[in-house]
Amino acid sequence: MSSIPLPAGLLDRAALAVGPGTAPAVAEELTALTGRPVLGYDAEGRLSGAAGGAQDAPLVLVGATLPPALRGDPRVRWFHSVNAGVDGLLDGGWPAGVLLTRTVGRMGERIGQYALAWVLADCQGVPGHLARTAARAWRREPSELAAGQTALVYGTGHIGTAVASALGAAGVHTVGVGRAEHAPGGPFDERITAEEDGPWLGRARFVVDALPLTDATRDFFAGPRLSALRGATFLNVGRGATVSLPALGRALAAGHVRTAVLDVLTDEPPAPDHPVWELPRTTLTSHSAGITAGTDITADFRACWEALRAGEAPELAVRIGRGY
Amino acid sequence: MSSIPLPAGLLDRAALAVGPGTAPAVAEELTALTGRPVLGYDAEGRLSGAAGGAQDAPLVLVGATLPPALRGDPRVRWFHSVNAGVDGLLDGGWPAGVLLTRTVGRMGERIGQYALAWVLADCQGVPGHLARTAARAWRREPSELAAGQTALVYGTGHIGTAVASALGAAGVHTVGVGRAEHAPGGPFDERITAEEDGPWLGRARFVVDALPLTDATRDFFAGPRLSALRGATFLNVGRGATVSLPALGRALAAGHVRTAVLDVLTDEPPAPDHPVWELPRTTLTSHSAGITAGTDITADFRACWEALRAGEAPELAVRIGRGY
Repeated sequence: MSSIPLPAGLLDRAALAVGPGTAPAVAEELTALTGRPVLGYDAEGRLSGAAGGAQDAPLVLVGATLPPALRGDPRVRWFHSVNAGVDGLLDGGWPAGVLLTRTVGRMGERIGQYALAWVLADCQGVPGHLARTAARAWRREPSELAAGQTALVYGTGHIGTAVASALGAAGVHTVGVGRAEHAPGGPFDERITAEEDGPWLGRARFVVDALPLTDATRDFFAGPRLSALRGATFLNVGRGATVSLPALGRALAAGHVRTAVLDVLTDEPPAPDHPVWELPRTTLTSHSAGITAGTDITADFRACWEALRAGEAPELAVRIGRGY
Repeated sequence: MSSIPLPAGLLDRAALAVGPGTAPAVAEELTALTGRPVLGYDAEGRLSGAAGGAQDAPLVLVGATLPPALRGDPRVRWFHSVNAGVDGLLDGGWPAGVLLTRTVGRMGERIGQYALAWVLADCQGVPGHLARTAARAWRREPSELAAGQTALVYGTGHIGTAVASALGAAGVHTVGVGRAEHAPGGPFDERITAEEDGPWLGRARFVVDALPLTDATRDFFAGPRLSALRGATFLNVGRGATVSLPALGRALAAGHVRTAVLDVLTDEPPAPDHPVWELPRTTLTSHSAGITAGTDITADFRACWEALRAGEAPELAVRIGRGY
């Protein structure tokens, strides 16, 4: 557990700095919230901006990445991630004693609508209609009802639950695949564990990967699981490394996977000659599914800030050992 | 009213014929249901197929169109449309004494998922992601939540209601625009009449045209209404002639309409040099939104057949004077 209560008064003395690429509106909002000028830090960890305040003041950082120079800086006491996924931050360990919080925002709802959009785009043949319009071709094409068909949703946490809510509202039968310790219920029509998915793979019309990246989920979707599918549409809104791209390529070639929509990759951005671009019937959506708006970042930072000032552990604090 | 009860025993003596383009599986299913061979009729109204039975047997036809030669044929007593829209059949009047029934099938549900698919495709930038993938370009793009935004749904009958159900389930605020005589309630968050839509036009993120074609709805979406929009996405799942394409073109050029998705046109199919292909940010979906599956046709024919044999008026009988 790393929900480190910061010492009383620390926030009063702390300086605040935002990372590279942070929108000016976010910095302005943080200034309004915290009542102090907001500094910046760059990719090398150099601080810039208003120079007031003590050189040894505690540092609160808001950003996407924590540069090595700041990783070892004892002034850093709290890092607020502008993203929900923090495994990149945790690679190589997390500095002891530094609170890590994250932005969840409306990410669940956004990813839910993303998943539903691509499920329906597939059923309604959206890519084909776009191509035919460009070619001035008029051809009636049957659509497919997503309603009544089955989706396997891997990951039954915040994101998986939101995906199931969105798909379920459109009539899709949702099967949540997750650890048994998670409470049953929620929006899932059924709940199983990963060990129990065998009989479902051949019946699933949709498979949504909403897994966090842990030792247990690396290459989770590899040959055995993917080759058991029978024409499913595969969406990855979890982590890139949970999918073996060579195995996915083979499953696409064999028709076990009908179409794939990948929001995340192990290597982002992929180089123009990366083999992922060669995958047939596959769309890459550039890690856009759960993209946070500036208002999401400041709202979630505010919730953490207010909890800490009240002496409480923020709900958005990351439990370091677990990775999310 | 044209829910003409057919004379008792007429169905026992009737011959059955299906129109051009009818799937063999539909004819087989109709044979199984009615216990007789199923003839065919062609675009000129010539009958073909098994020649048994009396030449003056009453005729039951199942098809998309009623050729002129059969329009004046006194043997024709019942025509079952394989489509839900029947205004093309009614153009120029309907032969007196001929029962007209139609296939509704799961059309409402299909069109609801179609509308939701295109609303979400717009919010999630599906066309852009497809184009970037083709170009091997990785670029994060913010999405937009459809949830919480407002859709005006014109037409509050079977189709409009189904559209509102689908959009509402995804969190869209739906305003049904229809005749006051329709009962309030249903899936709409609000109900207004067409005379009351003025204040809503500038606030609508989505506009769905699900209007039937009547004298009152021809060119319903013309300059005044379209130019009052402020960046709405416009979907037509109703009838092509309810929209003035020149006015839509001007509204697209001015940005009053952000994107358009047209499932129906006055002239179908449009010629390759038809100006509709020139409309910017517009997708044509070739009258596919509510396309009926063969099982829809036979299920709805069966319901009519069984009602008639029980001496009842089929629920799917068209009230001729009203046009739907």
